[in-house]
Amino acid sequence: MRNSAIISIGNEILLGKTVNTNLAWLASELAAMGLPVECSITVKDDPEAIGSALRQCWKHYDVVISTGGLGPTDDDITKQEIARFFGRELVFDEKLWQHVQNLFSKRGLPTPQINRCQAMVPAGFTALSNWRGTAPGLYYSDQGHCFFAFAGVPAEMMHVFETGAKPILLDKYHDLEPVLQKTLHSFGISESALAEALCPLNLPRGVHLAWLPQTGRVDLRFYGEREDLIESAIQAAKEKIGKYLWGSDEDTPVSVISALLREQGLKISVAESCTGGLLQTMLTDLAGSSDIYAGGVVSYSNELKNKLLGVSAETLSRHGAVSTECALEMVEGIKSLTNSQAAISVTGIAGPDGGTKEKAVGTVHFGFSLFKDVWSVVHIFSGDRQAIRYKAAEYALLHMIIRLQGKRI
Amino acid sequence: MRNSAIISIGNEILLGKTVNTNLAWLASELAAMGLPVECSITVKDDPEAIGSALRQCWKHYDVVISTGGLGPTDDDITKQEIARFFGRELVFDEKLWQHVQNLFSKRGLPTPQINRCQAMVPAGFTALSNWRGTAPGLYYSDQGHCFFAFAGVPAEMMHVFETGAKPILLDKYHDLEPVLQKTLHSFGISESALAEALCPLNLPRGVHLAWLPQTGRVDLRFYGEREDLIESAIQAAKEKIGKYLWGSDEDTPVSVISALLREQGLKISVAESCTGGLLQTMLTDLAGSSDIYAGGVVSYSNELKNKLLGVSAETLSRHGAVSTECALEMVEGIKSLTNSQAAISVTGIAGPDGGTKEKAVGTVHFGFSLFKDVWSVVHIFSGDRQAIRYKAAEYALLHMIIRLQGKRI
Repeated sequence: MRNSAIISIGNEILLGKTVNTNLAWLASELAAMGLPVECSITVKDDPEAIGSALRQCWKHYDVVISTGGLGPTDDDITKQEIARFFGRELVFDEKLWQHVQNLFSKRGLPTPQINRCQAMVPAGFTALSNWRGTAPGLYYSDQGHCFFAFAGVPAEMMHVFETGAKPILLDKYHDLEPVLQKTLHSFGISESALAEALCPLNLPRGVHLAWLPQTGRVDLRFYGEREDLIESAIQAAKEKIGKYLWGSDEDTPVSVISALLREQGLKISVAESCTGGLLQTMLTDLAGSSDIYAGGVVSYSNELKNKLLGVSAETLSRHGAVSTECALEMVEGIKSLTNSQAAISVTGIAGPDGGTKEKAVGTVHFGFSLFKDVWSVVHIFSGDRQAIRYKAAEYALLHMIIRLQGKRI
Repeated sequence: MRNSAIISIGNEILLGKTVNTNLAWLASELAAMGLPVECSITVKDDPEAIGSALRQCWKHYDVVISTGGLGPTDDDITKQEIARFFGRELVFDEKLWQHVQNLFSKRGLPTPQINRCQAMVPAGFTALSNWRGTAPGLYYSDQGHCFFAFAGVPAEMMHVFETGAKPILLDKYHDLEPVLQKTLHSFGISESALAEALCPLNLPRGVHLAWLPQTGRVDLRFYGEREDLIESAIQAAKEKIGKYLWGSDEDTPVSVISALLREQGLKISVAESCTGGLLQTMLTDLAGSSDIYAGGVVSYSNELKNKLLGVSAETLSRHGAVSTECALEMVEGIKSLTNSQAAISVTGIAGPDGGTKEKAVGTVHFGFSLFKDVWSVVHIFSGDRQAIRYKAAEYALLHMIIRLQGKRI
């Protein structure tokens, strides 16, 4: 089986200033193509470190890709080090210089001279066009091995990979065997309880199972080389834990709830407090969300809860804003305000302050409504403010999904 | 200077299923302590790959840290490979087993037997308590070198690092020299235009500058070993590009706007459409946000824009929802609805559909109001739906920040 390696270059990654999202994106693309990433090395913008990473990877993997350090500023030294490693001169490319100048003149700006270095290419390398920025990708091939270099800006890297590198790889290797895999997403059960519920799973030979605990839920990835065997493992798992499963593969809570609402011809609305807009952000994440999302409010004060949603002053004074009663009035209020068939309300304590003995930080009351049904759920989430907000918003979606799927757990 | 290396273990990272946020977090912590990460290697859950990474790192760096693969399921093999590499037996630890059982009984659950392996520790290693999960951290030290292993779940890793590893490192090394650094955040100017505006910068000897382009803005990080020299470089930069700077170091758009609003005793409200709740999510991200955030609406339909915000039917039919006129009526509507002193409205086309010849995808109209001032801005953002929504929400915050700072660009 063919394979690949990724070298991420950049002080900012090793200083923790930047999260390396490029690795996940590239790794996913390469695995899907049948060029799984075997190893990834992250090094500083340092000549010796870049050279050492190239020595470790080049010729040991079919494909080696570097990201980062191709920009126009002084700390961008990747191109020089690539040229040095492969023993090539840097050559000025008039066409690339034209391209850089065009990018600036389109925006009505003069081209800073500092960008001239963007038009330099190691001799024998192919420049890959970058329509989203000034740094071209680089490609070199020798005895069946390929090397690519991309800029570190994610949008530019993705663009050059898709339009420049991917066609070359698909053309070059005719023997690619993509890893077959299928992932099941569960909700409402812990990793070890799932493991026990699945036991004994008796996976077919050649099928493997990876456990992927996510924030607030667990994913199960089945992988191997034979689709029929993976499918039979999936069926066996579904018989045991089906009611905890809400989706598979690329499904996300928002993609699943959007599809369910669209299929059933429903619109949903939201009144949220502690999640501060996050639940609505999720619901409007996908294109075409206005088909399924009616609108909503972030009722951050008691006054707004009363004025916009009709939560009674008595409820607020007697039970407080973080209560089952308030969640139920909020959900009924937003549903009638927006004339939607489904609605969710969220009111809780995201912390770190605001907790009391009776209502600990992490306590969140949800109100749900679907047609004439109205019900509430209370859940205590762990973690910091960010985690509590995120888990609460996702919990609201997943709970509504399970109900829209006609299940109860 | 002392240094460190990080080994990230997990198929899911190299398959692109998981973004390695642990690396950024740990790297930032280690750099701040004076143990900068020199190199990071990511490998699969594979005995040979784990062994090879340990061989490459152990004894070459002062501190080596592994994350991932310490869970209770079959694919978690890190602990066995660590024991093999260091030539140790795995020993059952009754105290750890008690701890695991306590964790489950607290949640009212029986302890799945599969968790017994969590109580095994390589002989001569110290187990580091993990109060957030069942997998303890591991610590081993030899001739001035330290090795740590943490579970891959971010909340558990952070917790064990902070409570277990950090105190050990600070106690063990008395000669740590933290890298001194200061980062300036700019807005409203491109990377190369900034580079030209700063030119010639004449950095003092021993001070370095890293350019960190972010989505929609550029950060400049000055670093070195002498604080006074870094400070003088910063002053020189500020003289040239001061009006484009809105914050420094750990400042984020929401931390800066929150501080400005709090200082000036103001509350802000939001009416958003294409950003679908994201701007409000940002504004409520930090603890105590109810001091500065009054509340708002996601007016996803014309009906809600009219009913809640009082946008006139004439404006909507004549200019459309994506217009200066609508943005201005939205911002005035939400400001009066919430009685706030400041307000922002956002209405635009996040795409990928919905664009027209006159109003391209990425076109976003903003309305702003501060006391009696009301103004609008239109901006066209590039990128996909996610990028447009994110950039638009951040643009709204940064534009208001510059105004609250009494500047105009």
